[in-house]
Amino acid sequence: MVCYLNGQYIPLDTAGVPIADLGVQRGYGIFDFVRVTENIPLYLDDHLDRFYRSAEYMRLAIGKTRDELKRSIRQLLIQNKLPDSGLRILLTGGVSTDGYTVTQTSLAIIQSPVAPPPSVLPPAYTLVTYPYQREMPQVKTTNYLMAVWLQPWIKEQAADDVLYQKDGLISECPRSNFFLVLKDDTVITPGRNILNGITKKQVLQLAAQNGIHIEERDVLVNEITQAKAAFISSSTKRIIPVRQIDDHVFEAGNNAVAIKLFELLLEKENALIAERSFQ
Amino acid sequence: MVCYLNGQYIPLDTAGVPIADLGVQRGYGIFDFVRVTENIPLYLDDHLDRFYRSAEYMRLAIGKTRDELKRSIRQLLIQNKLPDSGLRILLTGGVSTDGYTVTQTSLAIIQSPVAPPPSVLPPAYTLVTYPYQREMPQVKTTNYLMAVWLQPWIKEQAADDVLYQKDGLISECPRSNFFLVLKDDTVITPGRNILNGITKKQVLQLAAQNGIHIEERDVLVNEITQAKAAFISSSTKRIIPVRQIDDHVFEAGNNAVAIKLFELLLEKENALIAERSFQ
Repeated sequence: MVCYLNGQYIPLDTAGVPIADLGVQRGYGIFDFVRVTENIPLYLDDHLDRFYRSAEYMRLAIGKTRDELKRSIRQLLIQNKLPDSGLRILLTGGVSTDGYTVTQTSLAIIQSPVAPPPSVLPPAYTLVTYPYQREMPQVKTTNYLMAVWLQPWIKEQAADDVLYQKDGLISECPRSNFFLVLKDDTVITPGRNILNGITKKQVLQLAAQNGIHIEERDVLVNEITQAKAAFISSSTKRIIPVRQIDDHVFEAGNNAVAIKLFELLLEKENALIAERSFQ
Repeated sequence: MVCYLNGQYIPLDTAGVPIADLGVQRGYGIFDFVRVTENIPLYLDDHLDRFYRSAEYMRLAIGKTRDELKRSIRQLLIQNKLPDSGLRILLTGGVSTDGYTVTQTSLAIIQSPVAPPPSVLPPAYTLVTYPYQREMPQVKTTNYLMAVWLQPWIKEQAADDVLYQKDGLISECPRSNFFLVLKDDTVITPGRNILNGITKKQVLQLAAQNGIHIEERDVLVNEITQAKAAFISSSTKRIIPVRQIDDHVFEAGNNAVAIKLFELLLEKENALIAERSFQ
């Protein structure tokens, strides 16, 4: 497997970040993750939009135009021949002499095999809530300290993932956006303090085009027990239904909205792949 | 310059962290920083105590006894011949196949030249407050996202460093502990939501032995204007007086406590160096 690192294509297992890089020393970095299916990087422009926004916010220079970045991605796809994979585009603060000041950034693109997501709605998740609010939630930084730290605890709770809440306000899962389906079939999803997912954006568009009413607004922990169903969205899995949050178990058979959105996403993906949308 | 990396002593400029390391990908790492003066790593046992505590909290295996770690440090001191320097002991989550699970950690020790601190109290700092509370404040993680991000803003404010506060409660500077001297010469310093500094520990001990009354308790932003002086403590600089916080300028000539503590620290250091305390 080959990766891109600061202008060069080198074997992944020889790719290293200098130990003085601010990404290592100070956790100063951003990334984005693009799912590749049938050799098509899905919603690449949306991911690159977010990547450039994250970089600007963090005052990290990418040093490459969007077209140059796309050419590097295409090179990797050609060399690695991994039609079902993930692309991780990583930008760190680079080597810093004073351990604090960003001078020259470091850019890497890593492709790794990822099993294609199932063509039917995957099995439902159990979530556990945890009181936490991500720093700089709108930026896709490399800070997953809490998420990695919570992994053993999540397993102890026999849960599949954690749902962050702070002061009773739900935000997100570490790598997914969260949706709650109310009794009247209105879907609600947090409108602030979150990373806006690329799949969430698709979900909102497809819902609007297909008569599913989704409101972006504050979602309270207290609303969970009033809801009939819940689901999460992510680039790798599209939609995953949620069967339980903490002690609350949703009634079975209420996943019609999740199923519908999953099918719409799949249909859109298949259309994108059919037209070979990658430029 | 040579550094220690997972059992080997290699030139620092060839030392790299694999790009798949959780320290790079997820910001999952801890460190400690030890000042070396006249070839003596000062308060090494205190730093190692904290390093082992940080590792335990983060569920990161160091894989070396304290004596082994000391031997590696001694090797570096012998090879690098940098009597005035800093030692950065860094432990990261290691290469992870799923990008989330800690399997094998990575340990590095990096020595770099650091000018010896001045033998008199350094010039006073101007601090600016910023609303922020560090995640896992009691652990010395590599997460300095906010501190690095704020650097340009701090310079714009013509300040020397930032003082974090949250909901009116002062915690710390990114790399120093904070002390406020009240009108009656009582010194107050935050007792929670902070990283307990090794120099702070010395300050508390020396103050107790020398009739300086320091209280560890909540310190409010509102108390700044009621105080007569302020100072910060750190391993690299010992004590730095503070002349201004936001718009509040302290009256000149009120640094008697800071001067006294600086002198006591210097005296203690000199005694430690004289007895070649490094074992």
